[in-house]
Amino acid sequence: MIVNGQHYRTLWIDSSSATVSLINQNRLPFKFEVIKSYTWQESCEAITAMAVRGAGALGAMAGFAMAQASLQAPANTRNQYLHMARAAIEKTRPTAHDLFFGVEKVYAAAMISHEEAMKYALLLAEENENNGRMIGIHGQNLIAEGSNILTHCNAGWLAFVDYGSALAPIYQAKAAGKKIHVLVSETRPRNQGARITAWELGEQGIDHHIIADNASAYYMQKGEVDMVITGADRIARNGDTANKIGTLEKAILAKEFGIPFYVAAPVTTFDANAADGTSFVIEHRSENEVLYTEGLTRRGKIQTMRLAAPGSKALNPAFDITPSKYITAFITPSGILRPQEAHSVIWNPHIN
Amino acid sequence: MIVNGQHYRTLWIDSSSATVSLINQNRLPFKFEVIKSYTWQESCEAITAMAVRGAGALGAMAGFAMAQASLQAPANTRNQYLHMARAAIEKTRPTAHDLFFGVEKVYAAAMISHEEAMKYALLLAEENENNGRMIGIHGQNLIAEGSNILTHCNAGWLAFVDYGSALAPIYQAKAAGKKIHVLVSETRPRNQGARITAWELGEQGIDHHIIADNASAYYMQKGEVDMVITGADRIARNGDTANKIGTLEKAILAKEFGIPFYVAAPVTTFDANAADGTSFVIEHRSENEVLYTEGLTRRGKIQTMRLAAPGSKALNPAFDITPSKYITAFITPSGILRPQEAHSVIWNPHIN
Repeated sequence: MIVNGQHYRTLWIDSSSATVSLINQNRLPFKFEVIKSYTWQESCEAITAMAVRGAGALGAMAGFAMAQASLQAPANTRNQYLHMARAAIEKTRPTAHDLFFGVEKVYAAAMISHEEAMKYALLLAEENENNGRMIGIHGQNLIAEGSNILTHCNAGWLAFVDYGSALAPIYQAKAAGKKIHVLVSETRPRNQGARITAWELGEQGIDHHIIADNASAYYMQKGEVDMVITGADRIARNGDTANKIGTLEKAILAKEFGIPFYVAAPVTTFDANAADGTSFVIEHRSENEVLYTEGLTRRGKIQTMRLAAPGSKALNPAFDITPSKYITAFITPSGILRPQEAHSVIWNPHIN
Repeated sequence: MIVNGQHYRTLWIDSSSATVSLINQNRLPFKFEVIKSYTWQESCEAITAMAVRGAGALGAMAGFAMAQASLQAPANTRNQYLHMARAAIEKTRPTAHDLFFGVEKVYAAAMISHEEAMKYALLLAEENENNGRMIGIHGQNLIAEGSNILTHCNAGWLAFVDYGSALAPIYQAKAAGKKIHVLVSETRPRNQGARITAWELGEQGIDHHIIADNASAYYMQKGEVDMVITGADRIARNGDTANKIGTLEKAILAKEFGIPFYVAAPVTTFDANAADGTSFVIEHRSENEVLYTEGLTRRGKIQTMRLAAPGSKALNPAFDITPSKYITAFITPSGILRPQEAHSVIWNPHIN
């Protein structure tokens, strides 16, 4: 997408040096900064520190990291090295299926040659971008003129290589000249809604307001939400969906108020090995993400402050699982699918 | 309640000087500070700035402010002055019924004499405290040994003169030797859960964890919430309840997961004039409460920071209305009542 008049992807790799460049999402929206990762170990750190985040972007980053490992691997212990690197990359974050998909694909290619690994990593990133574009094209058909759309967390272009999942239909609707308004739930504890989604929408000139996560039912009850669109981190064959903590709440509330609830995701998010959501691993992150927060001081300094009572502890599950019964449909690059059709889009790793 | 080994009420009045002392809730939990208000105008400012907040505490404060006005009123224009002061106090915040109740009672008493006004203001504060104590006694019968209780916002002793509403049964259960654990939803945008409820529970040695508002369905789905208890700002004759933004979400989620949802409130919160919640006035507060937040820096300074993308705007409804169908029962000073019995507790202003 365009930032300051220049086209950016969320992350990209230089194929000869295997240097990864990425927009540092820990500094957005207060600072737009591109950082570099020269090794797969640095790429792992960028994932754990959440300089890069979002299912699709994690998939591309994991593929890039695996390609870096392929370049770094000593010739005499190549296979063991690749195996070790793969395990380490897979350990960075447990929930997003795209990450595991990316690692697996590039690992398999790296077993052939480094050239194949790099080629596959580049291809995955390109597909990731194209998937976002197609999700946007299909999804915008669901958006009526004058719609109020609620979205949660960030599933915009910064959660992918470009375009995004949940926000892609919104960008397409805007491009098609539709008048739309987006309610952005701030998405505590890391505020990806207030920080990243709001920034994305602002940059693209899309009318939006941030609301506290607590306020979504208020606007649904008033009839001021026409649809909800979120992204996904992992989708089971029956349509059960893991996504950012709070998604389950929005889905239940939407059902209660008769509002369509859409999940936008590429095929790489669908987990062929999961019959339903019960096997999904939910990441629990540091309690400090709840107890402290980061913001911009009046003097323009990015600072961390304690929000909560000193001495109190917190619990911080990063994702929840929305049973498919609350989901109206999936918006995928191949079209709109009912939850019971979810299994049909599973990318079969043995065929592809 | 006890703070640093000393008994405190949330606010109190010196009956000869009509000076109100109050715990400054804008500084808690980072600083425990008692401030003074010498005039009804200063008391109005304390209400708008939310140095005092919570339905019960607002009721007492409004009564105190009216008693201050009664002392300040010039003898020759006493009635006009009292009328003007009443209107101004009523304008400070629109949602909590207790506030209007307190003003009305003390205004009527002030029409007789200043002595009557002060007497009534003191009586209301005393009743407020006693109501909390009785809510605790009745409510603790609902709490089983080993319960996990979710509460939202702060309806503890700091939301009343003492004891509280939602937290009163929890304090009583603790006093009765029951083992309990409280999930405290942080309650964006003002973080009353993370700041005030967590502080109250910590001071009373009650096991608790703060969670993001987004995480309540996650713990309900896991079977780790046995009951929800919240306070209320205004209750209609049919049981529809206005309370802190996010209460509606918790109530719908609790119903979806088959978890009892209790609303604890004294009779002063019941609005005899409202058949249902449709007439309730919902306060919309500054968008800055969502866009900025206050916390404690590492150097121990209380500071305000911007959380959200620069240029983005926010919407900030402070309350929502929970239809009575989502409420299991009301915990009142006179006992546990089903929503359809709500009308029976209405304090009849013409009789009392």
